[in-house]
Amino acid sequence: MQTLNLDLAERSYPIVVGAGALARADLIAGALAQPRAVIVSNETVAPLHLAKLKAPLTAAGIDTLDVILPDGEEYKDWPTLNRIFDALLANRCERSTTLIALGGGVIGDITGFAAACYQRGVPFIQAPTTLLAQVDSSVGGKTAINHPLGKNMIGAFHQPQLVLADTDTLATLPLREFRSGLAEVIKYGLIRDPAFLAWLEANTDALLAREPQALAEAIVRSCRNKAEVVAADERESGERALLNLGHTFGHAIETGCGYGVWLHGEAIAVGMLMAAELSRRLGWIDSAAVERIEALFVRCGLPVQGPALGVERYLELMAHDKKVQDGKLRLVLLRSAGEAVLSSAAPAADIAAAIAARCRAE
Amino acid sequence: MQTLNLDLAERSYPIVVGAGALARADLIAGALAQPRAVIVSNETVAPLHLAKLKAPLTAAGIDTLDVILPDGEEYKDWPTLNRIFDALLANRCERSTTLIALGGGVIGDITGFAAACYQRGVPFIQAPTTLLAQVDSSVGGKTAINHPLGKNMIGAFHQPQLVLADTDTLATLPLREFRSGLAEVIKYGLIRDPAFLAWLEANTDALLAREPQALAEAIVRSCRNKAEVVAADERESGERALLNLGHTFGHAIETGCGYGVWLHGEAIAVGMLMAAELSRRLGWIDSAAVERIEALFVRCGLPVQGPALGVERYLELMAHDKKVQDGKLRLVLLRSAGEAVLSSAAPAADIAAAIAARCRAE
Repeated sequence: MQTLNLDLAERSYPIVVGAGALARADLIAGALAQPRAVIVSNETVAPLHLAKLKAPLTAAGIDTLDVILPDGEEYKDWPTLNRIFDALLANRCERSTTLIALGGGVIGDITGFAAACYQRGVPFIQAPTTLLAQVDSSVGGKTAINHPLGKNMIGAFHQPQLVLADTDTLATLPLREFRSGLAEVIKYGLIRDPAFLAWLEANTDALLAREPQALAEAIVRSCRNKAEVVAADERESGERALLNLGHTFGHAIETGCGYGVWLHGEAIAVGMLMAAELSRRLGWIDSAAVERIEALFVRCGLPVQGPALGVERYLELMAHDKKVQDGKLRLVLLRSAGEAVLSSAAPAADIAAAIAARCRAE
Repeated sequence: MQTLNLDLAERSYPIVVGAGALARADLIAGALAQPRAVIVSNETVAPLHLAKLKAPLTAAGIDTLDVILPDGEEYKDWPTLNRIFDALLANRCERSTTLIALGGGVIGDITGFAAACYQRGVPFIQAPTTLLAQVDSSVGGKTAINHPLGKNMIGAFHQPQLVLADTDTLATLPLREFRSGLAEVIKYGLIRDPAFLAWLEANTDALLAREPQALAEAIVRSCRNKAEVVAADERESGERALLNLGHTFGHAIETGCGYGVWLHGEAIAVGMLMAAELSRRLGWIDSAAVERIEALFVRCGLPVQGPALGVERYLELMAHDKKVQDGKLRLVLLRSAGEAVLSSAAPAADIAAAIAARCRAE
């Protein structure tokens, strides 16, 4: 079990990574304000992992209530969020009741947003069960639901009290979701940690074989990168935006195809290649760097071409991005394979050409 | 024009009170991050006051978009909130777009919550047009929507950049709403400002005649009380809860009768009398104090008896209150007419008796 700390003054919290973390009722109890917690999970995750979390809590005298939601990005919406509120109100949950998000990124985001809004804010704990959630979405306090016109458009910054990343849960993760998580892991290498990128290239086979030591190392190094960035810029006024490498393109894919058709990691893998291609057109990186990134994605079984939405539709969807400022699209681009920058320097023609180069023809 | 400051370090903001405040495009422009604002109002307020706000902004080169919602507490809900999000997304509003809430407490609360959640938080300005909103809900950053099981259950703390309380708007305020606002004004006297309470008793006629000087004085003194309390306890961990005198009882009336049947000020007037009656039963204040409060409410045309919901139903609705802690109801009670305390000391039988004494028989 390894513990990192996300340093945010009075809102600091530990990130615990390791086999069996879900059963650490002692850590959870220490973070609760009253001996009661509401576990939010989904129909896929609950049968696999709920008992591992719940039984030790019950044994420790903590009263738990479960809210089990349907599984899928298409349920990261208001009606599903309202099911959490209904359960909290029907059970007279109070301002000091803690929510525990047991699941992937969708469960973490929607539960975190419920915690941010219920009675204007209650505490919550992240217990991520997918690779993507363990290395990215469970850390840093971004919470949200989707709107038909854009992903994560309705949300809040609300930091958890504790993150418990149990690496045992990755054993049952479907292959496609596991690969999707690797895209976010690789992202840290690309934006700020060239040594980690090289380590990932050297350990791809071990990761794909889900060797516990390799997984733990990848998760801890990812979380350390994320924690450093968030500690320096909690509300994304600067450096934190770099964590969105590939996300503006990727969100266009997710929204354009309908939520849940492309997995988030699949979409941002293609998005990162579009950003790399655009960086190459600006003369910032060379073709070899783009090919190196593509090769790693291919080895990880990630897609390297976007869907045939048409370039115009990509651009239209991207215009809704949260990073648009004064009508100008700002994109995370690469100065090298290991250093990202936020830039509005790219000419529209180059953006269109980069998309066209990396998506299937209509 | 008088200006107070709500002191919250980097989130401090001015509260401007006076005739013609809505036309102060200079103050608004100084608070905007880009020359664009979205004005949220309702079908009653917009025909009366929108032009006063909008024309000077347009003249100052600020691009405005209007979102006009239906009028009423029953629209302080998710579908109406979503109309704001739809408009913001359809018009590609960005993280630096400012929302302006032009209207009463419902518009202020729902617009503030939209600003808190849209893209995880955008700036907003309060332009309250009712007495209740000018003296209470526009100041202090509490935003929310209602849930069928409880009022203001879904919300956020999100401070505005500026509050513009234009006393001219009170001239067109329906009498019932004006009286409802007086209940919140009197509340400040009861909880922490006995000199203000005495001033209100001496100036009731001038206030009911809506004499501009008396109104401005009452608003400024109310806002000063509110600003002092919020500055000391922004997120209601202590003193701020005292601002909820009468609210636990009052919310039960509002929820129990269906949103919009009782006005908020009417409900909390009765709630304050229930709290006073309960304080009397605890021996904290005498009958003369209760009668003094009742007499002031009667002069202001406020109700002094609650609806016939039945005591059990009152208690059931009150159990959902946000101030419940570890299953125990905490109530704001009176130590004197001018000093409130938060207490869980009241026996259940006394709470029931105080309700019974102040509501109509079934």
